[in-house]
Amino acid sequence: MDAQQFRYAAHEMIDFIIDYLENIRSRRVLPTVQPGYIRDMIPAAAPELGEPWQVIFQDIERVIMPGVTHWHSPHFHAYFPTGNSWPAILADILSDAIGCIGFSWIASPACTDLEVVMMDWLGQLLGLPSQFLACSGGTGGGVIQGTASEATLVALLAAKAKAISRLKSIDSDVDESQIVGRLLAYSSDQSHSSVERAGILAGVRVRLLPSDELFSLRGETLKLAMEEDRAKGFIPFFVTATLGTTPSCAFDDLSEIGPVCHQFENIWLHVDAAYAGSAFICDEYRHHLNGLELADSFNFNPHKWLLVNFDCSAMWLKNANDVVDAFNVDPLYLKHDRQGQAPDYRHWQIPLGRRFRSLKLWFVMRSYGAEGLRAHIRQQIKLACEFHQLVAKDDRFEVPVPPAMGLVCFRMKGENNLNETLLKRINDAGRIHMVPAKLRGQFILRLAVCSRYTESRDIVFAWQELRSHANFLMGQQQLL
Amino acid sequence: MDAQQFRYAAHEMIDFIIDYLENIRSRRVLPTVQPGYIRDMIPAAAPELGEPWQVIFQDIERVIMPGVTHWHSPHFHAYFPTGNSWPAILADILSDAIGCIGFSWIASPACTDLEVVMMDWLGQLLGLPSQFLACSGGTGGGVIQGTASEATLVALLAAKAKAISRLKSIDSDVDESQIVGRLLAYSSDQSHSSVERAGILAGVRVRLLPSDELFSLRGETLKLAMEEDRAKGFIPFFVTATLGTTPSCAFDDLSEIGPVCHQFENIWLHVDAAYAGSAFICDEYRHHLNGLELADSFNFNPHKWLLVNFDCSAMWLKNANDVVDAFNVDPLYLKHDRQGQAPDYRHWQIPLGRRFRSLKLWFVMRSYGAEGLRAHIRQQIKLACEFHQLVAKDDRFEVPVPPAMGLVCFRMKGENNLNETLLKRINDAGRIHMVPAKLRGQFILRLAVCSRYTESRDIVFAWQELRSHANFLMGQQQLL
Repeated sequence: MDAQQFRYAAHEMIDFIIDYLENIRSRRVLPTVQPGYIRDMIPAAAPELGEPWQVIFQDIERVIMPGVTHWHSPHFHAYFPTGNSWPAILADILSDAIGCIGFSWIASPACTDLEVVMMDWLGQLLGLPSQFLACSGGTGGGVIQGTASEATLVALLAAKAKAISRLKSIDSDVDESQIVGRLLAYSSDQSHSSVERAGILAGVRVRLLPSDELFSLRGETLKLAMEEDRAKGFIPFFVTATLGTTPSCAFDDLSEIGPVCHQFENIWLHVDAAYAGSAFICDEYRHHLNGLELADSFNFNPHKWLLVNFDCSAMWLKNANDVVDAFNVDPLYLKHDRQGQAPDYRHWQIPLGRRFRSLKLWFVMRSYGAEGLRAHIRQQIKLACEFHQLVAKDDRFEVPVPPAMGLVCFRMKGENNLNETLLKRINDAGRIHMVPAKLRGQFILRLAVCSRYTESRDIVFAWQELRSHANFLMGQQQLL
Repeated sequence: MDAQQFRYAAHEMIDFIIDYLENIRSRRVLPTVQPGYIRDMIPAAAPELGEPWQVIFQDIERVIMPGVTHWHSPHFHAYFPTGNSWPAILADILSDAIGCIGFSWIASPACTDLEVVMMDWLGQLLGLPSQFLACSGGTGGGVIQGTASEATLVALLAAKAKAISRLKSIDSDVDESQIVGRLLAYSSDQSHSSVERAGILAGVRVRLLPSDELFSLRGETLKLAMEEDRAKGFIPFFVTATLGTTPSCAFDDLSEIGPVCHQFENIWLHVDAAYAGSAFICDEYRHHLNGLELADSFNFNPHKWLLVNFDCSAMWLKNANDVVDAFNVDPLYLKHDRQGQAPDYRHWQIPLGRRFRSLKLWFVMRSYGAEGLRAHIRQQIKLACEFHQLVAKDDRFEVPVPPAMGLVCFRMKGENNLNETLLKRINDAGRIHMVPAKLRGQFILRLAVCSRYTESRDIVFAWQELRSHANFLMGQQQLL
């Protein structure tokens, strides 16, 4: 493919994706293919000779589309949203063409420098405490990670290194593996599976603490647990507080947890706001951040709810040196003259290589403007409220927790297996797509407003779909 | 930005990137900006109101380009190449539009199923032993990781979990942290910094073993080290062999290392061919893979030398369950009906989320065909040979190791600081870009053939640039 052929193919691809996204409502949101379906549709080996683009292009609709779960369909209500917008796509095209690997400043200065400033822009939009921002001139700053899972792992590993180093400075004879065996991290029983997984990956124990009746981790619970564990000889060193849990979008009480961590000393407090963090660009939700000034790291995913394509997980550190010192390995082929004058972001993350992802933030923040982004968040929350009102009016349903952000958790009154059957029917029909969660043993359905194309009519559509399946199930029950 | 505005903007962006890449030779390969240069060129905060696209678009040339290190310039000879091709860019555009997060099969079946088959296609092109391929029907299979660093870390963590589990099954009373304290991993003193860093991240010791006179790790060295360490009470459990080291593209002797690991039992052998692995699509280089049948995992980066845009790091496992079992955390909101029938790739990697990256492999393998890819590799190796011939003819220079693949390591005869000065002059002039390495204390210059646009005339250009700086330095020396 030469440049002229690419020009033609790319213009055609642009038209294809516009058509795909603008008409996505017409596609079945959940596919019906079976595992391994592609193997039968394409050759068993790569072709020896290159194929013409038109043949490849036609296979997108023939081979790929039948197996796509359409995350940007207004009928997609599973998990949490993943971002998608025109300016973000433009940024990715540019990023692909520049195709630099920004592991050090000199490897592409624009890649690092834009990221530093964009993380300041974004942090300011959220009203983060100034210690987290590079523009404050301190030790803080932001970095784009791939995912919230990686941000949690980076924070946990930095905290682990810091704890080991501190304890060895007190007693240089102590064996490192003995320290690690006594380290204890905490999060709530509602926190994302990636927190527990980070513990497995980092080789440290994570204790999941009970949340309160609204599924929020409270300061007193944490305090008692850490006192108890300290008395047993464990070394509490790390806490993840979640703002917007995955099962029900509950908020841990940061205004209580922050002071507890501060009081205990030498506790790294990491705040995971992967989904809900985007809402903090709106004043009315920012109170959830009270206490953040006492945290060490904060993370949310613009690639979830802020119209930025995956991957772009925004992480801020109060003292970036904690991370840099923990992982620093510095071979000659990566050294350069300007070390220390700008971040070498490879030290801030698990991988070495990194794409030019700040372009997405730049294009999206400029193209929408702060007001445009706030309007998007408020509109999606409004749509969730509309859905909540529809559910609340039907007394066969219950809403075990208040709707939060763009998420409504609900269930049919009755047994779990009634709700399991309901959800299975819905997903088998494939006109809308949802996933479940369990809250204190109760099987619940989660409706998340995900697509930027979602409108009131889609909320009504989802409700009608739900109600028709509920009607069927109730009719069946009466027959029994 | 609405769809019509995007159509216009995207067509314009496509034309921009074609112009950028086709005329990249005319840009200074290494920029002259200072750290933090962007902060002075753009506002201190995001705009309240959205800006028109044309204003944003103009800032690409004004703000970004002055700070870009042009990795795809034929004058870029630093590090190793990073991939870039028209079909890969087309695939990324499509991936962005579909915008699915493929953490489980049901989250987008096409994303998982195409990856399974593409990793088979690619593995077959390289002639990997069939146990590594999903199509063999066994426990093996491939997965796309973000980077080789992550692949090494995944392998190391899986090996660690397996070793702990094995030793606890022998003695259930033994403390896990005590086991970890005795675990020992190995690689050569030439292996990439990411291997040492993986050890830091995983909390296990890594011993770097001396390589031979050609910078290759030999079986006997490994055998003696493991025997010695076992006698001291350590538990050897993991070996990384490198095919194509970063300093000099040396190859560890897999045909010796494989049997040693096999003999010792319970050693996980990971093979890192990040750069050079692409060459194994050509028969004449495949002999380096002898012994791979005794390895547990293999990794190379199509995003380096196989015309696929970053990120796309191809990893194969002989027994995928080793990885899945090590990291598996399975909350209800991620469960689905078809578990076990297809891989849920989230268990194979560090992050949870993942993009639809196999599209890049599909488009690139089909568009170039196996022959087109081989022609690319052979052409780049031929260009490196051309450069080597030019250097070898000038008796002021020496070539301490044979050129390998697309890399030529060389130096001026004389002191290290002469060569350091030479490289500094070259990079300050910014007409070509190279990075150094140290081989047994000798400071060397590395010329890697990186861009797919590189031609013979660019090799001659690089040599002339080098010689003119050498002439200047020799002239200066004679004046002293």
